[in-house]
This record gives sequence, structure tokens and C-alpha cells, in this order.
Amino acid sequence: MDRIGVGLIGTGYMGKCHALAWNAVRSVFGDVPAPRLVHLAEADQALAERQASAFGFEKATDDWRKLIADPEVDIVSVTTPNRFHAEMAITALEAGKHVWCEKPMAPALADAERMAEAARRSGRLAALGYNYIQNPMMRQIAKLLKEDRIGTVNHVRIEMDEDFMADGEAPYSWRNEKTTGYGALDDFAVHPLSLLQTLLGNPSRVMCDMARPYPERPDGKGGRKAVENHDVANVLFRIGDGISGTLQVNRAAWGRKGRIALQIYGSKGSILYDQERLNEMQLYLADDKAGEQGFRTIFAAPQHPPYDKFIPAPGHGLGFNELKIIECRQILGKLKGEDTLLIDFDHGLAIERAVHAMARSFESGKWERVE
Amino acid sequence: MDRIGVGLIGTGYMGKCHALAWNAVRSVFGDVPAPRLVHLAEADQALAERQASAFGFEKATDDWRKLIADPEVDIVSVTTPNRFHAEMAITALEAGKHVWCEKPMAPALADAERMAEAARRSGRLAALGYNYIQNPMMRQIAKLLKEDRIGTVNHVRIEMDEDFMADGEAPYSWRNEKTTGYGALDDFAVHPLSLLQTLLGNPSRVMCDMARPYPERPDGKGGRKAVENHDVANVLFRIGDGISGTLQVNRAAWGRKGRIALQIYGSKGSILYDQERLNEMQLYLADDKAGEQGFRTIFAAPQHPPYDKFIPAPGHGLGFNELKIIECRQILGKLKGEDTLLIDFDHGLAIERAVHAMARSFESGKWERVE
Amino acid sequence: MDRIGVGLIGTGYMGKCHALAWNAVRSVFGDVPAPRLVHLAEADQALAERQASAFGFEKATDDWRKLIADPEVDIVSVTTPNRFHAEMAITALEAGKHVWCEKPMAPALADAERMAEAARRSGRLAALGYNYIQNPMMRQIAKLLKEDRIGTVNHVRIEMDEDFMADGEAPYSWRNEKTTGYGALDDFAVHPLSLLQTLLGNPSRVMCDMARPYPERPDGKGGRKAVENHDVANVLFRIGDGISGTLQVNRAAWGRKGRIALQIYGSKGSILYDQERLNEMQLYLADDKAGEQGFRTIFAAPQHPPYDKFIPAPGHGLGFNELKIIECRQILGKLKGEDTLLIDFDHGLAIERAVHAMARSFESGKWERVE
Amino acid sequence: MDRIGVGLIGTGYMGKCHALAWNAVRSVFGDVPAPRLVHLAEADQALAERQASAFGFEKATDDWRKLIADPEVDIVSVTTPNRFHAEMAITALEAGKHVWCEKPMAPALADAERMAEAARRSGRLAALGYNYIQNPMMRQIAKLLKEDRIGTVNHVRIEMDEDFMADGEAPYSWRNEKTTGYGALDDFAVHPLSLLQTLLGNPSRVMCDMARPYPERPDGKGGRKAVENHDVANVLFRIGDGISGTLQVNRAAWGRKGRIALQIYGSKGSILYDQERLNEMQLYLADDKAGEQGFRTIFAAPQHPPYDKFIPAPGHGLGFNELKIIECRQILGKLKGEDTLLIDFDHGLAIERAVHAMARSFESGKWERVE
Repeated sequence: MDRIGVGLIGTGYMGKCHALAWNAVRSVFGDVPAPRLVHLAEADQALAERQASAFGFEKATDDWRKLIADPEVDIVSVTTPNRFHAEMAITALEAGKHVWCEKPMAPALADAERMAEAARRSGRLAALGYNYIQNPMMRQIAKLLKEDRIGTVNHVRIEMDEDFMADGEAPYSWRNEKTTGYGALDDFAVHPLSLLQTLLGNPSRVMCDMARPYPERPDGKGGRKAVENHDVANVLFRIGDGISGTLQVNRAAWGRKGRIALQIYGSKGSILYDQERLNEMQLYLADDKAGEQGFRTIFAAPQHPPYDKFIPAPGHGLGFNELKIIECRQILGKLKGEDTLLIDFDHGLAIERAVHAMARSFESGKWERVE
Repeated sequence: MDRIGVGLIGTGYMGKCHALAWNAVRSVFGDVPAPRLVHLAEADQALAERQASAFGFEKATDDWRKLIADPEVDIVSVTTPNRFHAEMAITALEAGKHVWCEKPMAPALADAERMAEAARRSGRLAALGYNYIQNPMMRQIAKLLKEDRIGTVNHVRIEMDEDFMADGEAPYSWRNEKTTGYGALDDFAVHPLSLLQTLLGNPSRVMCDMARPYPERPDGKGGRKAVENHDVANVLFRIGDGISGTLQVNRAAWGRKGRIALQIYGSKGSILYDQERLNEMQLYLADDKAGEQGFRTIFAAPQHPPYDKFIPAPGHGLGFNELKIIECRQILGKLKGEDTLLIDFDHGLAIERAVHAMARSFESGKWERVE
Repeated sequence: MDRIGVGLIGTGYMGKCHALAWNAVRSVFGDVPAPRLVHLAEADQALAERQASAFGFEKATDDWRKLIADPEVDIVSVTTPNRFHAEMAITALEAGKHVWCEKPMAPALADAERMAEAARRSGRLAALGYNYIQNPMMRQIAKLLKEDRIGTVNHVRIEMDEDFMADGEAPYSWRNEKTTGYGALDDFAVHPLSLLQTLLGNPSRVMCDMARPYPERPDGKGGRKAVENHDVANVLFRIGDGISGTLQVNRAAWGRKGRIALQIYGSKGSILYDQERLNEMQLYLADDKAGEQGFRTIFAAPQHPPYDKFIPAPGHGLGFNELKIIECRQILGKLKGEDTLLIDFDHGLAIERAVHAMARSFESGKWERVE
Repeated sequence: MDRIGVGLIGTGYMGKCHALAWNAVRSVFGDVPAPRLVHLAEADQALAERQASAFGFEKATDDWRKLIADPEVDIVSVTTPNRFHAEMAITALEAGKHVWCEKPMAPALADAERMAEAARRSGRLAALGYNYIQNPMMRQIAKLLKEDRIGTVNHVRIEMDEDFMADGEAPYSWRNEKTTGYGALDDFAVHPLSLLQTLLGNPSRVMCDMARPYPERPDGKGGRKAVENHDVANVLFRIGDGISGTLQVNRAAWGRKGRIALQIYGSKGSILYDQERLNEMQLYLADDKAGEQGFRTIFAAPQHPPYDKFIPAPGHGLGFNELKIIECRQILGKLKGEDTLLIDFDHGLAIERAVHAMARSFESGKWERVE
């Protein structure tokens, strides 16, 4: 496998995260060639050049189409705002480039469908940046499920909460506008859904309520303006016939900083996880000795690959950004023909469909099927 | 206030709990006369006499009507299985006795309504044994809400989970029969609802899903038998216009022993509580200094009355049974004319109505109003 | 076994605790006769009568010698300040009464020795109120050790911390006087030592440092007064040849409310416990499956006797005061000839000797043997 | 400031950690030029070349002296086993190179002293790899102390525990040999001491006990061999006149994975920290409102620089390896003349002196001064 040529569009937080991953993946894993950081695109040329220098890219442009057209670019990291994903990803795929696009796919379901179609047609790698699934603890959970350690799963709960919208007196912003999406459902729900998909499968039907903790916000001109979307969503769902579940997302939950709290109940045990403590998980095994049963707090360790590629000792902890390095290694592995863990555009589309079914259910007041 | 004469019907766990409370209330609080433990009723005379001796009651009977008729009995503790509550409580109220009845009121809504009506007609004290609300930490939460410490509440989540039904190979029992009720909804949901009522108000509308982790169980004769009710219930609800909420109850959740996990989100902060650690709560205040914000773990202390009546030092912990002593003191206070915290039959009826609305919603697949 | 006649001297917090225990022990356990609460002594007659009424004692006196002389009194609960223990306990033992005395035995080692001698001579039950050892979780720990679940113990750490002396501007009080003892060493160290003795054995040698967080305190007259004893003690110790250990006690540790944190390390696992969460313990077993190892949080449950005598369901929690009821049952069991868990005066003397050895070590600056 | 030329000696875990940091520092922080990874040295040429390729270094050698002599190398990362540190660091300093050396300095105090002397003479930057102090949470603790948020510190406890030596049947290895040092004291104690130095100051006197959980281990030939050093050390210490403290280190503590548990008690509050959860700390403020006091769990956030350089949102978590990137930025900052946080050879020497005083105290059985 030769060195792959990388193009990066967008250099906000996720763009930086991609850049750090492309830079580190070779040193961390050792078994893949170092990527070549070929081309970086930003909104204006000066910024593009500054960021290319900071992140170690060779060329800089203010025209992302040029980047895609660059023959030295083999794969394009798309990390721009959601509304640009569809056009950029499809253009890249049609130009024969691989694509690594941040989630969610697109605000409109039709755009997400076009992306998936373009990916299928192109035959290129088209992966989404759902890096929570790359956490070694999440893979350990998947392993426990596969090994039947907690038996047949019958119930699951997942919550995602942060507090960046919790201040009701913070002024009205683009985040409160309907055009940016449903609110917490787009911002947050896709993450828990990516975990559910990886661990248990996609919801087959959903029932959703949404709420506005602050129906109005200051408009910045002394008045108040009605908020158009919802900071809170509460969802009942089923996965197939056997699993009942609930999903709650809230971006206005004071005190929650990066919470994704997962509870999985099976016929022989249970599993708990909270993203705010991403280096640990809890496991309850019903067949532990009587009087000695309890949830075990398991810290990330070399026994949970690929933690061992980062640190040879247990309990030292990976960071959120390092999950992106693992995801990057999956991308490179996929290109080598390995069977790696990634959410491609087709699987991403299933997540988007669930989100839109939730929104429909809120309107209809009844259960909706996820197509 | 003279010494009150107590009759106790039923001596299972809750009966014992009542007996312990009647025995201890005077010594713990000091400001009420010692109750007289007059009469105890059980299913057969020998057992009644044994228990009367164990719990310090003067007389024993196998006929609960005799106990109610006993002129020395002023108040009747009803701690028998749910299906007997209505007849016993109504008989006692009609005989002019006060009643302290364990929750829930009755499997059938019509019976609960008759109980509430009898209570109203009688003018006697008719209280339900919802002792979770008596926890000093729960009162501290109520105080924080009243003092507007976390601002206007806009979202609440409450979960109740245990694992006594989690073994799918445990044989079919009366608990799996429809005649005993909906399952987790009767067994568990009433407790969270009692906390919600006390802290925030009753749900106005509900949307409910129910599930059977184990659709069949061994019938004890080598075959399997279909389970008739549900060990899991998941509920979306609203309290008035302003609060969205969720309720999950699961009596088949491996590893959960006595969990009632509460999350309350307001405009200025948040509150967390878990019954498995009943002597602590967590508080997040948004106006704490930047960089120093976090959930505080607050241990029960003399600042949280009536903890101080039990222990003069903080952090030493009350037990679950001791909450019943506090409830008992509320009963005696009410009889003295104090304004005490109790869920009377009318307020209990609101809880039962919410449960039945949930069951209706599960059938209809849509939102149902709580009348 | 007939009903035992109880005398209670002292009605502060521990006196109330004894009274509650004597009142409840029969109802909780069922297998012992109800004690007769015969006689109560307090400093003045009016108080004695009030408390006798509150706690259900038949007679009241302001002369504790009369109580001891009362032929209806079989056992005397001594719950007065430490400096009175020796005289009262010895008088009672010499009068042929059983004694249940609160810890520690006495400020002066010579007095503790006289108490132990009197107990041996009398042949009566002479037990100390070390109720932390009665916690079902502590018994579970003892069971795990006995069953070799964590192998041979090689290291132990124990800390006891509260914050009632943490305010350096709180005025000088009797607690700061040398005549009341060494400070944290008497107040606190005896508790961890009682746990060590029960679980692992007595320290054989000790090395101690003591410290004064606040060398002076306001004297209440506008000046400041030098503090005479120490709020902090730090101790290295050995138990026999095989176990190294540390003990820290601090009664000026802000934020600590009732902490007794225990860590026990063995050749096959580890055990953790914290008194602030007295209904749980943690267990690590080295032979759990690789990748699944972690400390288990075990909640108190009916599998941990005598929790089952209080509550038939796991995870509901006992209170600190209820440990005294368990201790009371041990007393009654001992009198019936059962082999119960109690720290008698001889074993209590070993604890006091360790404390005094610690104080000597602080003076000498080197290791001291515990005789 | 020009691009600095980096030489790396040693490519074990710490070598990899340095390489990752040198690679990432520019992209993460943006305000320093990208280092040039010039030269890498390993024990044999083939390995050196493999690692140079993996970590992105231009040249590879099996002769570390050549690397030091390379005029393109400005700074040398020394990450070899401890016994090589002195010779390599001194050679580099004498060649006019800056040095970034992993801790501890050297097994023999005399060697550490020679290193410090060489650093003073050279006038070059000579920093040690104590990266735990770089954790944003640790800097937040330092800030809280500086701002007097918990008042005057009077007591501190620190524990460091792992379990890689906890299996007593693991065969005898070089780690059990006296020539490699005292055992847990060298392996572990230097880390807590680096935190103490940064936050509170160096111990002025110490009293130490050491223990061998497993006095013998299998020799791999069917027999057993006596262990020469100690897996456990327990220490009493004082910092100046005002602070009493304890230190415990144990590399045979089952269940502990990367624990460094810190407790700091002051006159107005307390601080807790545990390295196993490196993205959080706990703070207790005595002047919080009565009834609302408790330890706050504070998650790492952009308010805790330089967390913000990695992630713009709170609660997402840094990894252990990322602390090395922060340390690397300190190195580069120092070279730019910034006042950065680093433990240089002089301050490192103070840590080594404390360790050796502890070992002396264990021999003497009494307090020893740290020179």
C-alpha cells in the first residue's frame, strides 16, 4: 500500500481533529504508511494557507473543487458545516475520490439519499465520522454482546446531554432556526443511534416527543424571538421484536458536559457506559457468586484493542481526539481490504431515516416505522 | 393529644415496617405521645398471636373486622396484599377509624375511586404509605425547588429498576398474571409518580410502551406458559405545559437493586438523585464560578430535617425502614393539626389515574390524557 | 431466656441510640424476648423523667448508682462521656450486672485496664459499643477474607475523616484540651482499629505523626488560645509480619462527613469500603476473566445477614442507627450462649493500647511496639 | 523562532510518546513552528530505521553519540532505561544541546547530582518528563490553591497504586533486583512528589516504611528466589511547618490500574483528584450555602487551559498521551523565553533527594531530613 494523498476541506474543530489523526495514525499504529497531507481547503486563501502550515498540508486553496480535482488527492476529509456535506461528498465521489465525511450526512433526507447513491455508484470508500463507536470500551461492549456474556438483550436506554443551550438568556442564534434542522434530534440523536446500530441494530419503529425549554430567546435588539426547533427530544423505540428502548437527548441540560449514558439489559447481565468517563464501562454478570454480585467498573486496558497501540499499561486513558486516530486507522485498513468498523453512507442513511421518523412521529403523535 | 390506639392488619414486610415505626416514633421524635399498639390481625390466629408478641401488640385476631370494630383502635395500618386494600380501608373509614394504607390503592381504578370517596365522606385521616417522599434528601430537593435554586424546571427523567424478575428461567408465578395488574406499571410506576407529584405535579398526558423481556416462563411442569403482563414500561409524559418528562420502570433489570434515579433540569441548575444511595443527592448550580462548576454530592445531614431527629452528625445515613418512622410522625402530626407531608387518598387517586392512562396509551398507541 | 431488665445511663446521642435498639431488637429479629426497659439515669431528675418517658423506661433517677443497685436491672448501657465509663462500668460489673459500654473505654490506659480486670473477675458480659463492625457489609468483608476470596492480605489502609473541627475560627472548646485526650486519636482512631481487629488483627507496632491544623483558636474573649491536642494523626503500622498498613484520622477535613475508607489488598484481590456509603462495598477478584476485571460495587442484600432481618429486598439500605440494633442482638445472643461478634473489654483494651502506643511514638519519633 | 531539530534516543513507550508529541505539538497549539524530526537512535540499526520511519524521523543510528553530535539536532529526547539517563543527558548538555529526559533522573543520587550540575554549567534547557503535572485539571488545582479558594493548606495525602506486580506467582525479574532501585519508591514515588512539588512544595522531612508483599518469587527453574526490593512504601512527611502529609505507593495493589489519588485539605475547603479519572477533579468549598455543601465533580473544560487547544467543548476528555503534547509545548515555550511549567534538573534533584531520604528513613527507623 502506497502513501495515500489526503485532502481536507474545513478546519473547524472537526477539521483539526482529522488533521491530528492523519498526522498521528502512522506513529500510533506503525502498520500503515504515513499519509501525505496534500491539499487543504478553507473559505479564504489566507486562512487556508495558515491552516495548511499549522496542520502540515502541502497546498492550500479557497476553492474546494480544486482540491477535489487535485490528482495527488486520493481521499477527501469533509468537515464543513452539514449543509455542504452532500455537494462536496458527491463531487468527490464522482471524481473517483474516497470520502471521509463528518456526521450527520445532511439536513434533508433527500440529500443523504443522494450521497448514499453516489457512494454506491462510485465504488469508493465513503465513511462517516462517527468516532464514538471507535472507543475501545465500545468495542469491548460489542465483544461482550457477541460472546453472549449478558445473554439476549431485551432492553436498552440511551441518553445524550450537554448544556451549551441551557442558558435561556443566551441570545437567539442559527442553532434555534428550523432551517438548521430539528434541534437536538440532528445535533445529538445521530450519535446514540450510531452506537445502537453498531451494538444492537437500527430502531424499527419510534415514538417521539420534542420540547422547547425556552420557547423564546432574546433577539439581541431588546426584544424576544420565538425559537423554531427543539432542544429536547424523548423517544420510545423498538429494535426488531425483542428489544424495547428509550432515547433522550437534551442540549439544554445544565451540568451535563459530554454525556452519552448507555444502559443495556440482557438475560444474563447488564452493561453501563457513560461518555463523560470514556475510559471505563460497567458490567454486571448474573452468574457471579451470590452475595458478590455487582457492577464492575472496568478501565480501558491493553486487553481492549486498539488501546494497546496507544499505551501499554491499563488505566491511563485515551482522549476524545484519539478516537479519531482509531477511526483514521479503520479508513486506511478498509482501503487495504481489511474488515474494519466504519459507518458507511448506507449505514449512515439508516441513522438519518430514524431521525426523520422521529420527527414525523412528533408531528403525528403516534408510532412511526423507520423505513 | 392522647396516646393513639393502633391496629395493624397484615404482617408481611410492610406490616413489620409499620410495627417498627409505631414502636420507634416516640423515641425518635420525642414530641409525640407513644402510640398504644392495641390490636394485630393476621390470616390465622396462631400467626396473629406470634406476630403480636413479636411486634408488641396487646391483642391478636384472625378477623380483621374485629380489629376495626375494637373501640380501642383509633387508626388502622393496612399492609395486606393490594387486592384487600379497598375493602379494609373503606370498612375502617366507615367505622370512623383513621387509615394508613400501603400503596398502591387497588388494582382496579374503580376501587381506588371508592376508597377516595369513602375517605372524603368520613372526614378521617386516610394516608398512603408512599414513604420514599419522606426521605430528608427528597425534602431537601423540594426545598431547593421551592427556593428557586435551579430556576424553572423544564425537563425531568425518572427510572425505577430492580432485578427480582430478571431471571427468565424463574418459573411462572402470580406476578406474571394479568389479574394482579399491568406488571411493572403497578409494582413500580406508582413510586416515581409519588415523587413527581410531591416535587413537580402530576402528569397531564402520557404515551406508554410496555414490553415483556420473557414472553414465556417455565410452568413448573416441564412446559412453558405465556406471561400475561409486562416487566418493562417506558413512558413519555408532560406535566402541564412547561415540563417534558420520561419514566422508565423495569423489574427485570439485572444489577439494579433498588434504583429510583431522578434527573431534574431547570433554567438555573439541575438535581440528581438515586434511591440506591438514599443518603445523598447531587446539585448543579449554573451560577457557580466558571471553571468550578460541577455536580455537588450532598450527604444527608442535620441541615436536612428530620435527619437531625435520628442523628446529630452528618453523613452517617438513614435506612429505608427509618423513612417509615418519618411517615409515621407525619401521620401523628396530621392528627395534631400540623401541616404535614402525606399522600392522602385523593392524591393517591391521581397517581392511580396516571397509571391507568399509561395502560390505555399502550393499547391505543397514542397520547392519553390523565383525567 | 427471660426478658432481660435494662438500665440506661446517659441519654445523649448514644443513649438515644441504645434506647432505640433496646426498643426495636425484638421486633426486628423476632427470636429474642422483648427487653424490659427498667431504669434510666440522667444528670438531673427532671431530665431523667422526661427521657424515661420518651424512651419508654419505667423508672427514672438522677443517681446512676441507684440504677445499678436496682435488682430488676440485669444489664447496664453506659453512654455517658468517656471519663465516667470506668467508674460506672466497674461498679455495675461488681454489682453482678452485665455491661454494654460505649467506646472508647477511658481516657487513661490504667482505667481501661481496671475495666478489663473487673470484667474478667466478674464473669459477666462486658461489651463495647463498636457498632461499625456490625454492618452487614463489614461482615461480608470478614466472610470474604475467611473464605480466602482475596487470598493472603499483605497491605491495608484505613482513613477516618470528618469536618466538625475544620472551621479554624470556631472557638476553643473542651475538645481542644489535652485532658480530654490526644484529639483525633481518641475520637476517631479507635473506630478503624475496631475494624482492623475484627478483620485482620491488632497492630503489633506503630509509627505516628500528629498535627494541629489550627495551633490557636479564638478564646471567645477577643484573644486566641493555644490548642493542646491534635486534630490529625497519621500512622504507619504492621500487623504481625505479613501486613503493612497505614491509618490516617482527621477531624478537620472539610467535606468529609462520616468517612471511614478502607482498602484491603490481598494476593488474589482487593476490597474497598467507605462508611459514607455504608450499604455497599467493592470487590476486585484477580481471577475474573481478562478484559472484564474491575471493582464490583456490591449493595447490601439479604445474602448479607442480618440485613435480611430488616429488609427482604436488596439495595434498600440500612441506617447507621440500625447497626446498633444488630449490636444489641449480639448482646442478647451472647447472653443466650451464642457465639456472637462483639468487642469485649479485653479486646477493647488491645485497641486502647494501640492508641497509646501511637501517642508514645509521636513523642519518641520512632516505632513503638503495642504491648 | 526557527524550527527546532529534534533527536530521540529510545523508542519504548516513552519514546513513542515523545515522538507523538513532537509530531502533534504544532497542529494542536498552532503558535509554535513545527519541529524537525532529525535523528533517532536505537540499540540496533535495523530497529532504529524501522522506528525512524514509523515516527517520521529523517535519520537513524545505533550510536546515540552520533545523534548528539549531529549539528542539526538542537534538543535531545532521552527515553532510555533510567540507568542510561545520566551519561546521555550529560553528554548532550556538554555538546550544547537542550535535553528533555524522562524521569526519574538516575538510580544513584550522585548521578542525579552530576546531571543537575551539568545542566547548570551548560545553560541549556534541561527538563524532566513529569507529564502528570501538565494535566489541565492539575493546573486548575494549582490555580485554586493560588487563588486561596480552599484557604491555607494544612494536610495532604497522596497514593499511587498499580497492579502490575500484584501476581505473586509471576516469576522473579529485573524489577525485583536491588540494582534497579528501591522498588515502588523509584518507580512510583517520584510522580506524587512531582505533583506535591508543583502544588505545595517539597517534603522537608520524611518517615518511611517499606514492605514486600511477596518476599520470594518463582525463579523460573522450579525454585524460588528472594525478592530484593519493595513493592510497597508508606511515608509520613511534613512540608515546612504547616503541612502534614502521607504518601503511599504500591505496585502490587490488585485492581488499581493507574491510580494517583490526591487529597488536599485547607482551611476553607478541600480538593480531590484521581489519575484514573484524569479529566475530573473534586472541590469542596466550606462557604457554600448550608445544606448544599458537597464535593463538586468538575470535568475538564475549555476554562482549564490548555484543554481548549485540544477540544472546544467541555467534558470530552484528554488522554494520558496528550499530556505529553502539553509538556512538549512547555519545552518549546521555554525556548521562546516564556515562563512555562516544567520540572528542570534542579527541581528534579529535589524529588530524588526526597526519595533517598525515604530510603534512609526505612533503614534508620526514624525521621530523616530531606537536604
